[in-house]
Amino acid sequence: MVAVAESFSDRLDRAIISTGSMLCLGLDPDAADAAGAERQCHDLLDATLDDVCAVKPNLAFFEQHGSAGYAVLERIRDAVPGDRMLILDGKRGDIGNTATAYARALFDVLGADAITVNALMGRDSVAPFLDRPGRGVFVLARTSNPGVADFLDHPEAAPLYTRIVDIAGGWDPGGGAIGYVVGATSPQAIAEVRRRAPRAPLLLPGVGAQGGSLEAAVAAALDLHGRGAVLPVSRGISAAPGGPAAAARSLRDRIAAVRAG
Amino acid sequence: MVAVAESFSDRLDRAIISTGSMLCLGLDPDAADAAGAERQCHDLLDATLDDVCAVKPNLAFFEQHGSAGYAVLERIRDAVPGDRMLILDGKRGDIGNTATAYARALFDVLGADAITVNALMGRDSVAPFLDRPGRGVFVLARTSNPGVADFLDHPEAAPLYTRIVDIAGGWDPGGGAIGYVVGATSPQAIAEVRRRAPRAPLLLPGVGAQGGSLEAAVAAALDLHGRGAVLPVSRGISAAPGGPAAAARSLRDRIAAVRAG
Repeated sequence: MVAVAESFSDRLDRAIISTGSMLCLGLDPDAADAAGAERQCHDLLDATLDDVCAVKPNLAFFEQHGSAGYAVLERIRDAVPGDRMLILDGKRGDIGNTATAYARALFDVLGADAITVNALMGRDSVAPFLDRPGRGVFVLARTSNPGVADFLDHPEAAPLYTRIVDIAGGWDPGGGAIGYVVGATSPQAIAEVRRRAPRAPLLLPGVGAQGGSLEAAVAAALDLHGRGAVLPVSRGISAAPGGPAAAARSLRDRIAAVRAG
Repeated sequence: MVAVAESFSDRLDRAIISTGSMLCLGLDPDAADAAGAERQCHDLLDATLDDVCAVKPNLAFFEQHGSAGYAVLERIRDAVPGDRMLILDGKRGDIGNTATAYARALFDVLGADAITVNALMGRDSVAPFLDRPGRGVFVLARTSNPGVADFLDHPEAAPLYTRIVDIAGGWDPGGGAIGYVVGATSPQAIAEVRRRAPRAPLLLPGVGAQGGSLEAAVAAALDLHGRGAVLPVSRGISAAPGGPAAAARSLRDRIAAVRAG
């Protein structure tokens, strides 16, 4: 290669600039079968694509329909334009040749631009996902659920999530391939992660149904360019009383208002 | 229900007694396509079923073949007799309705008796897997890879893996539904987990290709009845110079020798 490949964070940044949006459509289809799940996904994509920079299918909601559901995932890439990031949310975390096989499944078979990864097992649980130029991983840092208190928030000297961010930062010396999942429910934790990782993309679940403050989360997450974050919303779009298109537009505008400061 | 349902650990115990084995066949097929993976699995099952109490497919090696690979997983249950435990190794870990969807995928669609779970996100990442009587989860405690030093072995006051075991034990007040994954490479860690969880089933990867000492691992893991552990071996069986059947028999006998003391 002559040209230096664009990193994932650069590609995401471009998607945010071109769409003017940091909103991410979360796909958690709750249909009775795989065909219904596929229809739900297409309806939501049709209604919201103009207002999102990324699409995040949650693998569990497809796997619950077995191989037919997995086949829906195989076709999602074709429905997401190349200038939107496809973030596959499976929170995989394993090592060695197992992680290599997951990388093949998620990046090569399903066409992800980025994936969510659980780094509990340490460096060798993330390294096999870093060898594809332009692709990225979001490492779970601090999630938005009550159980975050059990381990991730647990302070011995410092909470585990800060240790994860400090250590995982060293796994991506060139930058641009590793971001972090930080629940939108704690703007303080978002600010802490942003301080430790000034340039990393942040994936911030929990602003919709989970009730995190969108404005506080965005304000804490913005990087020096006023970007660098993606806010996935699933039920807050798919189950919105006024319909998904209006919900996505409204969420996008609220994010933009914070960015405009 | 009038009768109290048998717990997973009781069912596993029965499988160990009836087969006289604590060996578990790990299925990590490395074939070029899904059909090849399915053939590999059936060949290994045919060669080793007499000598194993459990079978552990590693989901990544099926998912790398997309929906066709996932369909192979759907058929694995039929190939594993009901008196052998089917342990699906996907290390899933997510919360709320996502975890519920994974439980549906792994227990209901794929027919697992037990699954491996990553508890990093805390109690709500395990709870949705505990509502099926007779089924179980193996929570990742201390894995066998070098990266274990990054988080799981990291001592602030005590290593994270001991905290995981202490806390997860409280999530299963009746006992029998939660076990732990503890890498066979550290008999000391196995002994530590066994001390904290005297009755929990332990899944001990790492005795085959990863080079852990089988004898030391088994000795550290045995419960008061001289059972309570399962040793999954994949490449150490599938790629054994003398063939899988002889390898499984030999491993089984070495385990039995430790149990016989």
